[in-house]
Amino acid sequence: MSDGSSAPNLVFVRHGQSVWNRENRFTGWIDVDLTDQGIAEAHSAGQQIRDAGIEFDAAWTSVLQRAIHTLWIILDEIDAPWLPVYRDWRLNERHYGGLQGLNKAETAAKHGDDQVQIWRRSYDIPPPTLDEDHPDHPRFDRRYEGIPTAALPAAESLKLTLERVLPCWEHEITPALQSGQRLLVAAHGNSIRAIVKHLESISDEKITGLNIPTGMPLAYTLNGELKVVERRYLAGEEAAAEAAAAVAAQGQSRRDDS
Amino acid sequence: MSDGSSAPNLVFVRHGQSVWNRENRFTGWIDVDLTDQGIAEAHSAGQQIRDAGIEFDAAWTSVLQRAIHTLWIILDEIDAPWLPVYRDWRLNERHYGGLQGLNKAETAAKHGDDQVQIWRRSYDIPPPTLDEDHPDHPRFDRRYEGIPTAALPAAESLKLTLERVLPCWEHEITPALQSGQRLLVAAHGNSIRAIVKHLESISDEKITGLNIPTGMPLAYTLNGELKVVERRYLAGEEAAAEAAAAVAAQGQSRRDDS
Repeated sequence: MSDGSSAPNLVFVRHGQSVWNRENRFTGWIDVDLTDQGIAEAHSAGQQIRDAGIEFDAAWTSVLQRAIHTLWIILDEIDAPWLPVYRDWRLNERHYGGLQGLNKAETAAKHGDDQVQIWRRSYDIPPPTLDEDHPDHPRFDRRYEGIPTAALPAAESLKLTLERVLPCWEHEITPALQSGQRLLVAAHGNSIRAIVKHLESISDEKITGLNIPTGMPLAYTLNGELKVVERRYLAGEEAAAEAAAAVAAQGQSRRDDS
Repeated sequence: MSDGSSAPNLVFVRHGQSVWNRENRFTGWIDVDLTDQGIAEAHSAGQQIRDAGIEFDAAWTSVLQRAIHTLWIILDEIDAPWLPVYRDWRLNERHYGGLQGLNKAETAAKHGDDQVQIWRRSYDIPPPTLDEDHPDHPRFDRRYEGIPTAALPAAESLKLTLERVLPCWEHEITPALQSGQRLLVAAHGNSIRAIVKHLESISDEKITGLNIPTGMPLAYTLNGELKVVERRYLAGEEAAAEAAAAVAAQGQSRRDDS
């Protein structure tokens, strides 16, 4: 792809299946790794990018290994492990609060299906807050050292996720794009949704119905004002829509709110 | 290791066997990957660091995949793939000029053993320069874009390697150490030798006889003025000395000047 103006300058990849996706548990900020299927999804994403001939100047990811390992696999597939990589905790998945680690079916039995659907599907209702003394609270995790406890989430709605992700977008990623860099972002369902909502001015109502399929590179061509000139899934819109519909249709959905 | 003052704050790891090490070819800046043995050496290095309980705040590596992959394996072994990683071309291996890619035995046959030994063992005599139009010249490689051609090496002695590595040490790594960060550096035989020579004020004569064994973490405790308080191989001095002696003794040495 060397046709200049329409070459994508921003590509998102949502990581594939993790161990807790497979076990149907709420994951959030718990740092579980990819399964073999998740690894295969990352290779597929890398191959799609390579086949499209897309080049990058830098890559961004979260501080969770399922996203980092997805990125590493892609960097190898595109022969560019030497690219600068920036890890930012603000690209982490939505924090799932007190639900993290719980089996989704067990949680529905305990709190009722309706309540669980609200936590999973509403835009601005966060799940129960993780107690500040709970060992899983991010303030006990060395990777978040130096971040004030008040700035660390202990339960997030998609709205709160977006408010946490946007400063990274505005102060880190946007300046890089505006300097002409082409960026790869390997992250999570909800941190990617947050940026996509912002980029495409999607309403609060509509964003809850938008699912990003895993392992399918979503490529944007942005102009100098970071307006969307083109947006496409490298696998094709049809394949992506099918994958997104499969996510939405899963009764015991494990993929839309990992 | 939580005994405070003597905890290492700087650990070097030299990458293990690469494909061209195994094929007995001069490698330099050619971006060959690790062999299975090299991968195993990286795992061993990571396990040694984990067993020693050493923690880091950031990691540095070159822009060559054999060092980057070594680092990734170590980061996984120490459960810290989330650490900030800085890639810097100035940590690359010594540039082997026109010898890169050549088989060492064939090169000895062509130029004579004595000449090859001079290129490999002298401190300040570089090998033949790679022609500026040679496709392997770094100026054609996208990862060195933005670096003036005059600053890119086309053949280096250990002395020239050191002159290229030191600005990275002084302007990037040193400030991080002085700010209290504990650093892991995954790099190459000669870029590590360059820093070690500087750190320990080793003479030009002595440095040519110093061999860094592969996959054996070399841990320094530096004080606030970056003077060496302690220096040790995590595997023990004896094991490291044996490995270094094995490198030095190899008639067709493939490991000391990769």
